[in-house]
Amino acid sequence: MDLLQYQSDFLKYLAAQNFTREPRNLYEPVDYILQLGGKRLRPVLTLIAADLFSGSYENALPAALAVEVFHNFTLVHDDIMDDAPLRRGKETVHEKWDINTGILSGDAMLILAYQYFENYEPVVFQKLAKLFSKTALEVCDGQQLDVDFETRNDVEISEYIEMIRLKTSVLVGAALKMGAIVANADEEAAAHIYNFGVDLGIAFQLQDDYLDTFGDPESFGKQVGGDIIENKKTYLYLKALEVASPADSEALLALYNTDEVAKETKVTEVKAIFERNNIPALTQQLIEDYTNKSFEHLTKLDLPAKATDGLRAFGVQLMSRKV
Amino acid sequence: MDLLQYQSDFLKYLAAQNFTREPRNLYEPVDYILQLGGKRLRPVLTLIAADLFSGSYENALPAALAVEVFHNFTLVHDDIMDDAPLRRGKETVHEKWDINTGILSGDAMLILAYQYFENYEPVVFQKLAKLFSKTALEVCDGQQLDVDFETRNDVEISEYIEMIRLKTSVLVGAALKMGAIVANADEEAAAHIYNFGVDLGIAFQLQDDYLDTFGDPESFGKQVGGDIIENKKTYLYLKALEVASPADSEALLALYNTDEVAKETKVTEVKAIFERNNIPALTQQLIEDYTNKSFEHLTKLDLPAKATDGLRAFGVQLMSRKV
Repeated sequence: MDLLQYQSDFLKYLAAQNFTREPRNLYEPVDYILQLGGKRLRPVLTLIAADLFSGSYENALPAALAVEVFHNFTLVHDDIMDDAPLRRGKETVHEKWDINTGILSGDAMLILAYQYFENYEPVVFQKLAKLFSKTALEVCDGQQLDVDFETRNDVEISEYIEMIRLKTSVLVGAALKMGAIVANADEEAAAHIYNFGVDLGIAFQLQDDYLDTFGDPESFGKQVGGDIIENKKTYLYLKALEVASPADSEALLALYNTDEVAKETKVTEVKAIFERNNIPALTQQLIEDYTNKSFEHLTKLDLPAKATDGLRAFGVQLMSRKV
Repeated sequence: MDLLQYQSDFLKYLAAQNFTREPRNLYEPVDYILQLGGKRLRPVLTLIAADLFSGSYENALPAALAVEVFHNFTLVHDDIMDDAPLRRGKETVHEKWDINTGILSGDAMLILAYQYFENYEPVVFQKLAKLFSKTALEVCDGQQLDVDFETRNDVEISEYIEMIRLKTSVLVGAALKMGAIVANADEEAAAHIYNFGVDLGIAFQLQDDYLDTFGDPESFGKQVGGDIIENKKTYLYLKALEVASPADSEALLALYNTDEVAKETKVTEVKAIFERNNIPALTQQLIEDYTNKSFEHLTKLDLPAKATDGLRAFGVQLMSRKV
């Protein structure tokens, strides 16, 4: 099945929803953020998983929408916390309206996400809602760790990986597992597809970190070097501190702890340190490791290898993406 | 059954929870707000309703906790939106920590609330979660209407009643109905107890409005006249505009639209307008009307009148409270 087909069916389902109701000041921002676009990776994964285990995916559309609405809820609240002016090239909700609107519309989206599970009978409903609550709380934990790391100078690589696992990856795993639940897959299979998603999600976030620094400015869409400018303790930064020469480590720490170097100079110098110390290749290696690890979970599924080819292709595509 | 017994059992159950886990910066505020006190009216109502329909209420403790955690979530986010420094005489969460912590810890509380329903089997779980989502979204709607009313000059009394129904009363109704659901009451009985709660909740909020202006400064606990200082379009204000003489209406509008009158003078003058136009008695009358209306729903229950005496006593107590 073509990936674009899942995406197009999801977009049709999304377009058929009517988010804008009274009071309009509460629901217009919900509609706005959900129409901003994005790759719709998570809901597509829900549909793929449902298709994989039951041969159909229509029934998984409400669960897929729950995942997408939840994901957009986290964007609205995170953008407030990060004071971000733009999202997908457009004004963020709190910028277009105000912070209070961002808070309250976000709250409404979190609740709306739960409501989509009401399309399922009680046993499936409970499984979906339990997984969703567990995942949503982990995403909050991950966001908090990310905030905590800003003011810590002793973040370990293992802690960083755990942070991105919580903040990003568990939702990828949950999106897939929801498809499995809707398709009545057995628990073991659901666990394998979940673990596939979690490892793939880590690879995805590491690729995000890589592209933020080494992406092609022409195709990347965001400002290359944003993480460096914001002193983000990404894998690239933490790995450099681990493997770089003492002189480079010191220079990197200095660049991350001063406001007196111009942004462009800072990005150039940090990139040079990363390159001198082989960080791009080391990062690419870890991305490949997590992608391969994710594929191993697929081999444990009691399915013909051919059935999971689509998910492998999806993984390879994510790993080699430029955007 | 003594009301204090329900409250004390709920407080014991609350104290046995361990909210503070890692990451601490996320969960310490959750523990903080839940330990701040308050009347615990909503969870007590869940227990009373469960007891009424099944003769026991232990089983309703998780649902009661969900209601209390949700209520406190709304306080955390509302206090950010209202820029409130104090809650129950202590610092608000965003004041003690910061706004981002208030947003994220609040989000976690909303999710935690759903998790308490996982104590119930799928059919009951789904009923509780559905009612909860519907109610939580209505509370958001009510909060948005409250915000919208700040900048509107044509708010009707019926719109105001609808706003407090959504913002405050549906949660009172839902708290009771959750007790009924846990106790496996039939749907008709659950609907009656819900409607009892909604009308009682409206009476409760009107009494709040009344006390905010006409409460005894000695016993009220909050600053008397706060609503007037903040130009809140309460029932008292809207009713005054409806029934007052043209001169008093004009004076009231003027007082609500200037910053040039000292707070104390403003409170004194607005109170005088209210008193001259019989607003205290008219408000008390409406509170009594809603309380009586709520009691009528109790008579429709297929229960001996004696069984609902406790709820009636609870209603009378709320109506005559000074705090």
